[in-house]
Amino acid sequence: VTAVAKRGALSGEDRLIGRHFKPIARDPGAFGLLDDAAALTPPPGHDLVLTTDVIVAGVHFFADDPPDAVARKALRVNLSDLAAKGAEPAAFLLSLALPKNIREPWLKSFARALGADAQRYACPLLGGDTVRTPGPLTLSVAAFGTVPTGAMVHRAGARVGDHVFVSGTIGDAALGLKLRRDRKAARRWRLSDRMRDQLVRRYLVPEPRTALAASVRAYASAAMDVSDGLAGDLAKLCRASGVGADIDAARVPLSSGAGAALAADSKLIETLLSGGDDYEIVCTVPPWQQEAFEAAAQAVRIPVTAIGRITARKDARFVGVSGRPLKFARPSFSHF
Amino acid sequence: VTAVAKRGALSGEDRLIGRHFKPIARDPGAFGLLDDAAALTPPPGHDLVLTTDVIVAGVHFFADDPPDAVARKALRVNLSDLAAKGAEPAAFLLSLALPKNIREPWLKSFARALGADAQRYACPLLGGDTVRTPGPLTLSVAAFGTVPTGAMVHRAGARVGDHVFVSGTIGDAALGLKLRRDRKAARRWRLSDRMRDQLVRRYLVPEPRTALAASVRAYASAAMDVSDGLAGDLAKLCRASGVGADIDAARVPLSSGAGAALAADSKLIETLLSGGDDYEIVCTVPPWQQEAFEAAAQAVRIPVTAIGRITARKDARFVGVSGRPLKFARPSFSHF
Repeated sequence: VTAVAKRGALSGEDRLIGRHFKPIARDPGAFGLLDDAAALTPPPGHDLVLTTDVIVAGVHFFADDPPDAVARKALRVNLSDLAAKGAEPAAFLLSLALPKNIREPWLKSFARALGADAQRYACPLLGGDTVRTPGPLTLSVAAFGTVPTGAMVHRAGARVGDHVFVSGTIGDAALGLKLRRDRKAARRWRLSDRMRDQLVRRYLVPEPRTALAASVRAYASAAMDVSDGLAGDLAKLCRASGVGADIDAARVPLSSGAGAALAADSKLIETLLSGGDDYEIVCTVPPWQQEAFEAAAQAVRIPVTAIGRITARKDARFVGVSGRPLKFARPSFSHF
Repeated sequence: VTAVAKRGALSGEDRLIGRHFKPIARDPGAFGLLDDAAALTPPPGHDLVLTTDVIVAGVHFFADDPPDAVARKALRVNLSDLAAKGAEPAAFLLSLALPKNIREPWLKSFARALGADAQRYACPLLGGDTVRTPGPLTLSVAAFGTVPTGAMVHRAGARVGDHVFVSGTIGDAALGLKLRRDRKAARRWRLSDRMRDQLVRRYLVPEPRTALAASVRAYASAAMDVSDGLAGDLAKLCRASGVGADIDAARVPLSSGAGAALAADSKLIETLLSGGDDYEIVCTVPPWQQEAFEAAAQAVRIPVTAIGRITARKDARFVGVSGRPLKFARPSFSHF
C-alpha cells in the first residue's frame, strides 16, 4: 500500500489525494501519486541520509493548531535532522492517520502549506499513505537527504578542545509552549506582545537550518539537531563521542524574549536549556576550523555562537554565572 | 528526531531502543540506532523504490493480535509493494506510536519478530522514531528497495492482449477476517479446522512475494500488489494503463479453504474478489513472455495463474460461470 494514493478505486481516498496531494507532488519520481511506490535516482557518488519522525496531536502539537503549522512541523522536524547531518534535502514520504473530524478545508490548507515547504526546501513529496484512525491525528514523515559518500556528520566525532557551537537562539520554543499553556506567563515575564508572539511562533513552526548543512558537513567534527533540549542533546553527543563539554551558560544565545523572561525569572534557565523543540543545530568544530565555520555560517546568514569547549571529563557541564555547574532535574525531553 | 533512538538522554526511550531494537539493527548504516539519521549507499546504476504504509490497531489489525504478527504485518505490507514493483528489499525505517498499555514483553516479542523478518527478507532496520500516543498503536514503515535504473514496474504499461496473472491464492485473508469476527462462519462454510486456521493466518500475517520481484521486473508490462481486493486493484491498474480486462472468475486461484467456503455459499465470490489483504501480485505479461514468466515463477516456487486478458474496452470485467460479468457493490476497500 502506498503512494499517498494506494487504497480505494475512485474512492474517497483517491479523490482526497487527487484533490489535495497530487497538485503538490510534481516530481517525476512521484508518478502523480498514482503508483504503489515512488522512485528516487540518487546522484552518483552520494549516500542517502534517512530519517523519520512521527508527530501526534496532543503530544507534539495541539489538536487545534492551524493545519498549515501542522504540515510545516511534520516536514521540518525531519529537515532539521537532515541539516544537522550535513545532508541536502532530496525527497520525503508522508503517512497520515486521519481522525474523522479532519475535513476538506483542513486538508486543503494542510496540503497547500506542505507543498509550499516542499518547494521552499527543494524536498519534493514522493508518496505516502493515508488511513483513518479512531485516535488522534498522527503524521509520520520519512525524509531523505544526500551527502557525498561517507560525508554524513555523526554524533560521535567530537574531540577534546573542539569548540561547541549552536545555531540561532535556544529555549524560545520551550517558552512558547509554556505561553501556549499559561497565557498569564507573558505578563509575569514582562514580555512585549511581539516577544510573546515570536516565542509562541517558535513552538508552532520550527525553522530547520537547512542552509547550514554544507557548513556543518565542511567543518563540524560532530553534530545533531537540538530537539529535546540543549543540555540533554549535548550530553548525548558527548556520550556518543566519549568526551565531555564545558559550556558557559551565559554564552548560550537567547532571543530578546527569552532574555526578558530569564531576567524576570532566573529559574527559567532550566526551561531554556532543557525544554526542547529548538530545532537548532549543536555541533563541534576543531579550533583551526572555527573561523572558516563562522564565515561559512555568516555567508548563509545563520547566526552561530561558540558556547564552550569539548573536554576529556565525560560529562556535559553548563557553568552558570556563579561559576558552579547548573543541575537539571530533567535535562531532556523523553516520552518514556 | 530520529534513529529509533532520538529522544531522551539515558531516558526510557533510549533504554527501550537499546534493549529491543538495537540488537536487530546490525546494518552498519543504522549506526547502532544511536545517531539522528541512517545512511544508505545505493548500488551504482540503481534507483531506489520508496514505499510507506501505516497500520493502526483496530483498523488494520486487531489490538489483541500477537505482537509478532503485528511486527510482520507492518513490514510485510511494504515488502509486498516493493515486490510488485520489481524491487529487491534494501532497508526500512520504523515509526512507532505506542499507547501506555504496550509494555516490555510485548515490545520484546515485537522486536524479535521484526528482526527475524528483516533478516529473512534481507531488509535491515536502519532507524525510526518512537513516541507515546493517547490513541491506538500506530506503526508506519517506510521501506526502500532497489531496481536497475528505470526498471521499476508501474501500474501503467498493460497492453491489449497481455495476459493477466495473479500469484498465490486470492480471497483467503478476506475470509480470515470474517472468521475472526464470526467464529460460527467456519461451520457454515464447512471448513476443516486446518482450513479455518490457514484462512485466519492469511489475514494475520501476509506473505509478500519478494521472491517473485525479479520475474516481475523481467517480464511484466504492469504490476501492483493486491491489497484492497483483486477487483478494485485490477481496475486501478487498468485505469492507469488506459485499458480494460476480461477475467474468468472461475480461473481465479483459490485455496482449498476458500474453495470450500465458496461451494457452501456462492455469494462469497464478492468477498473473495474484493475483500483485500491478499498481498499477492497482479501483473500483466505480453503473450510472447508468458512461458518465460511462468518458468521464472516456477523456479522460485511461487504459483502464478493466468486469469484473463487485457482488452481495449476500458473496464475490468470478472465473468462468472453464467457467462455474465459479476457486479460488485464495493469492488475495493477504502477508508474514505
